[in-house]
Amino acid sequence: MKKLEARNPNFKEYVQLKISRNKFIKAIGLEFTSIEPGYLEGQLVFKDMLEQQNGWLHGGVTSAILDMVQGFASYSMVEEGQQVFTVEAKISYFNPGTANKFFTRGSVLKAGRRFHFCEGEVYYMKEDGTEVTVAKGSATMAVV
Amino acid sequence: MKKLEARNPNFKEYVQLKISRNKFIKAIGLEFTSIEPGYLEGQLVFKDMLEQQNGWLHGGVTSAILDMVQGFASYSMVEEGQQVFTVEAKISYFNPGTANKFFTRGSVLKAGRRFHFCEGEVYYMKEDGTEVTVAKGSATMAVV
Amino acid sequence: MKKLEARNPNFKEYVQLKISRNKFIKAIGLEFTSIEPGYLEGQLVFKDMLEQQNGWLHGGVTSAILDMVQGFASYSMVEEGQQVFTVEAKISYFNPGTANKFFTRGSVLKAGRRFHFCEGEVYYMKEDGTEVTVAKGSATMAVV
Amino acid sequence: MKKLEARNPNFKEYVQLKISRNKFIKAIGLEFTSIEPGYLEGQLVFKDMLEQQNGWLHGGVTSAILDMVQGFASYSMVEEGQQVFTVEAKISYFNPGTANKFFTRGSVLKAGRRFHFCEGEVYYMKEDGTEVTVAKGSATMAVV
Repeated sequence: MKKLEARNPNFKEYVQLKISRNKFIKAIGLEFTSIEPGYLEGQLVFKDMLEQQNGWLHGGVTSAILDMVQGFASYSMVEEGQQVFTVEAKISYFNPGTANKFFTRGSVLKAGRRFHFCEGEVYYMKEDGTEVTVAKGSATMAVV
Repeated sequence: MKKLEARNPNFKEYVQLKISRNKFIKAIGLEFTSIEPGYLEGQLVFKDMLEQQNGWLHGGVTSAILDMVQGFASYSMVEEGQQVFTVEAKISYFNPGTANKFFTRGSVLKAGRRFHFCEGEVYYMKEDGTEVTVAKGSATMAVV
Repeated sequence: MKKLEARNPNFKEYVQLKISRNKFIKAIGLEFTSIEPGYLEGQLVFKDMLEQQNGWLHGGVTSAILDMVQGFASYSMVEEGQQVFTVEAKISYFNPGTANKFFTRGSVLKAGRRFHFCEGEVYYMKEDGTEVTVAKGSATMAVV
Repeated sequence: MKKLEARNPNFKEYVQLKISRNKFIKAIGLEFTSIEPGYLEGQLVFKDMLEQQNGWLHGGVTSAILDMVQGFASYSMVEEGQQVFTVEAKISYFNPGTANKFFTRGSVLKAGRRFHFCEGEVYYMKEDGTEVTVAKGSATMAVV
């Protein structure tokens, strides 16, 4: 994938500002560990409140994580002052989320003037270091 | 839409059991107000932890609500002991979630033996009683 | 569903003009039987070239029909001279397309200034007059 | 992406058999140029019947190509005699299809016993050899 170029020289601060104002991120405990133009990484330590009925990561939480990692990846590719709204998103659930720690990455695949096409993934690491995909998703973000 | 017939005479208790074990539902405060075969209604009082960066209902929360209302609608259409897993879901965001109280409804459109096709909606009520759609979604649920 | 109001008094002619220029519609034999603001109906007589490997209506044709019925429903809700492009679409396949004649309907659920949210359905009629859903879909259309 | 292992030693013949019975593929002129376990490539020469109203590749054709490349990639990962049906598919349209020749690739990302998760792409080549994505999609295939 070709590297994207940010339109806002202060994209990192701008994304961090948006993240800092987002209370739901704090409520679930998602942390972003890397912010590059059109690409974000994050992680989440599992806790009780994120459980569905079998004790696994709730699919709704997974979809919320994907919404955030794709949304903030999109924010890294707009101009200062512009806003990003999710138009639509799809998520496919590959494997149950049975781990103590989850990781996520989100990318902007095409950064248009009016829309961004994004994709994202939630996964965990097995002891041998291989990744297990929990879910993959795609989303359309409107730039306003 | 034609009324569906439950396969489990105790479908209501079965759905309530699954809901009671789901900690994320309690964490966000979603309550289900009606449980019929293939059809559920619920509501959610807005609170700070559900905010995105503009102070509106977080899109990730909206997608989580849709996952739950569609998933438990699906649980109302399985046999005792069967489980339901979300295979995939799509959500379209129609309007910002700017209200103090939100409502949701979810339906099973086709209840097959191996999977269910569902749809759901999150909305709020204006003072004049008209509904404003926040988001609509569709999902495929696997029955195991 | 509340009735939409067209922004173009000549919406019917405008939609028909767009349809007339679309060669793929003719190639598969889709005909539009009703054009209202934000709502279209059409029909298609089955023929050999539309078969997949089991002799049923090809899922790719079904998705093409949904793209058209939703796209032209969207064209009925723009101003003269504006264009409509599909941003994204999802389709769920409910039942095999085993019939001699298929019907379709497409609606604009929300007609914004920059994009439209649409939904559509392909179905056939059983001898007793009941509808069998072949597929349902949703789409985002950009208005340019 | 890790290489998948076919469950059917005659997967190539099996996929070709399914392709040979599919009349819509012939109608639009799609050819498959590579058949590997869980991965297919194909190409399509543009012709008049595939046009939408602006003279570009019709989005419905693009979605049909994605349905086929993902569906037959899925067929390469089943046992002899099993069938594959598209449960649902999503497509995002990145760029207009303005070329004389189009290419497609489809992959199985996860080959479960009951479901396959697939993704696919339609693209064309610029004179300098770079690829332009026309559309990307994801799909769930049921294995029966």
